[in-house]
Amino acid sequence: MERIFFQPGPTTLPKEVLSRAKAEWDDFEETGLNIMEHSHRGKSYETVHDQAKERLKRLMDIPETHDVLFLQGGASLQFAMVPMNLLESGKKAKYALTGSWSEKAYKEASKIGQCEIAISGKDTQYRTMPSMDYQASDEDAYLHITSNNTIYGTQWPDLNIFSHPNLVADMSSDILSRAINVSDYALIYAGAQKNLGPSGVTAVIIRKDLLHENEKLPNILSYHIHAKNNSLYNTPPVYSIYLLNLVLQWVEEQGGVAEMEERSTKKAKTIYDVIDASSGFYKGYASLESRSLMNITFTLENSELEQQFINECEISGIFGLKGHRSVGGFRASIYNSVPLESCEKLAKFMVQFQEKYGK
Amino acid sequence: MERIFFQPGPTTLPKEVLSRAKAEWDDFEETGLNIMEHSHRGKSYETVHDQAKERLKRLMDIPETHDVLFLQGGASLQFAMVPMNLLESGKKAKYALTGSWSEKAYKEASKIGQCEIAISGKDTQYRTMPSMDYQASDEDAYLHITSNNTIYGTQWPDLNIFSHPNLVADMSSDILSRAINVSDYALIYAGAQKNLGPSGVTAVIIRKDLLHENEKLPNILSYHIHAKNNSLYNTPPVYSIYLLNLVLQWVEEQGGVAEMEERSTKKAKTIYDVIDASSGFYKGYASLESRSLMNITFTLENSELEQQFINECEISGIFGLKGHRSVGGFRASIYNSVPLESCEKLAKFMVQFQEKYGK
Repeated sequence: MERIFFQPGPTTLPKEVLSRAKAEWDDFEETGLNIMEHSHRGKSYETVHDQAKERLKRLMDIPETHDVLFLQGGASLQFAMVPMNLLESGKKAKYALTGSWSEKAYKEASKIGQCEIAISGKDTQYRTMPSMDYQASDEDAYLHITSNNTIYGTQWPDLNIFSHPNLVADMSSDILSRAINVSDYALIYAGAQKNLGPSGVTAVIIRKDLLHENEKLPNILSYHIHAKNNSLYNTPPVYSIYLLNLVLQWVEEQGGVAEMEERSTKKAKTIYDVIDASSGFYKGYASLESRSLMNITFTLENSELEQQFINECEISGIFGLKGHRSVGGFRASIYNSVPLESCEKLAKFMVQFQEKYGK
Repeated sequence: MERIFFQPGPTTLPKEVLSRAKAEWDDFEETGLNIMEHSHRGKSYETVHDQAKERLKRLMDIPETHDVLFLQGGASLQFAMVPMNLLESGKKAKYALTGSWSEKAYKEASKIGQCEIAISGKDTQYRTMPSMDYQASDEDAYLHITSNNTIYGTQWPDLNIFSHPNLVADMSSDILSRAINVSDYALIYAGAQKNLGPSGVTAVIIRKDLLHENEKLPNILSYHIHAKNNSLYNTPPVYSIYLLNLVLQWVEEQGGVAEMEERSTKKAKTIYDVIDASSGFYKGYASLESRSLMNITFTLENSELEQQFINECEISGIFGLKGHRSVGGFRASIYNSVPLESCEKLAKFMVQFQEKYGK
């Protein structure tokens, strides 16, 4: 039986990417070595490195005003690096709270400088994205948003509502799933392990005017140093960047971000439609207008059936649906690598499960 | 023709490790996924994670007083994290300068707190390890050493000369190549890409009494937080740790650190013997008593032959010997994954090259 996966992240990689990497495993481009055995200062790796950078620029239509960095440490290190680099003393960093990850980003930044909550959806238990009634102020170092909230399954449906001179976005969980206008952002960061590749590398897109020397900052934490060294200041995570490059190539071959956006919409609809037609047998966690196209969170009206649901999923070859402990229930993470067919199978399973156990 | 490699790092992985990883590529332990597609909170990955930790403890005979962490960011991030975590105000961090990497460690730490040079080999252009005439003082937060210097090809021949209550060592380039007494250290760190695995993960061994909460430090930079969360505070570099675990398994199967030490000594001797018997045709960079067993640096008496040497190496299937730009000449990096046979082939080539071009 074919198994299908809705892994929350690290998530599955496209089959084509895994096959390509396997084919090159013993001998990368006739060098006699796996790419991960190459020096990061050698031609073989540098070509991969620069290809990955150029591909991300093409795919996201990144303008000349912005640079692309590949760093380590995940979004969690960016929670610290963003204020360390962008929060000057005398200024305040503003945070939009829309879930656990933005709360963490805010908490970590508060250790580094003055921070304030700009808007918050906490009073809805993060079911609903808050209304965007925030006006940029001169005291703002930046406004930080989280574009998609993996735990609650919510997402800003329209990113154009933010007009802040220094908009910073954690796009770890929905980068490359929809078109965005990079010019609108001072900085975008994304841990790779959802839509970009395996864990171990983080993409940062930063407006070049924000790259300035800061002699008090350790080099490894300075965007300026990484940009100046084309992300080769220290040994990069060679294999993670190699796979990221293959994932970007795959996205290009599939038709780019526009195609990913169309697929995401269709994939999500397939499952949300079952929830909405279930007369309350399935209950979506997120408010209708804040639903994520990446993480579909739901519970069962009859919570006693939860274990049965997971058991029957596994018997049917469906894995990875357990919800995050803070929300409970189920979460179908349908990142770019998850094909429409997997969503259709899950939808079909859900209908059958309701037929069997619904009143 | 079989090719042999002396990669400076990222370096080659043992053939057995690459084969095992390839065999498990499409289906890790009948899960239907590559290990890198598994959630870091799932059983499959957690087993790998804990295995790697336990293996390193066994191999290095790490006592219960110490914990093992797997972090990202390489040694360069440790240059900052060590003083951020261990350099209390009012104390001074002391550094032994023995090459470019220890200079960098010292420079980065100086941004964070008060630092002083304890001993230095700079006046010998780092050809000779300085004499250990430093006495620990009450004002010392720690004493930082670099056990092996990749660029100059020097190494502390005896690590027992350091008796400091808080000895910190960067062992990135010789960890697992010789037995050490972990109890002598407050903290040991090592980027994986020489003797532990691919790039993208850093092992940190830290004495538990040094793990204390610091609310001002971002979580991602706190040893305490990482230790408390078994290095799963944030998404770890799953695939790098998986490969690190396979490398550790390989070291165990080969006979452990004692065997690696014996091999290293034999491997290095094979090449140093040729240099020493060449009547000056080959010139070692490091002083005899400071020679590294990991990186053998040498130049040619007649520097006009350098390009010829590299060309003929490549014709003979020998790669990776170009020296670092700050020393010039050649560097044979013979980390644990390099077999004795490769060193013997290089030695034979060097003898033949001298026969052809020597006077």
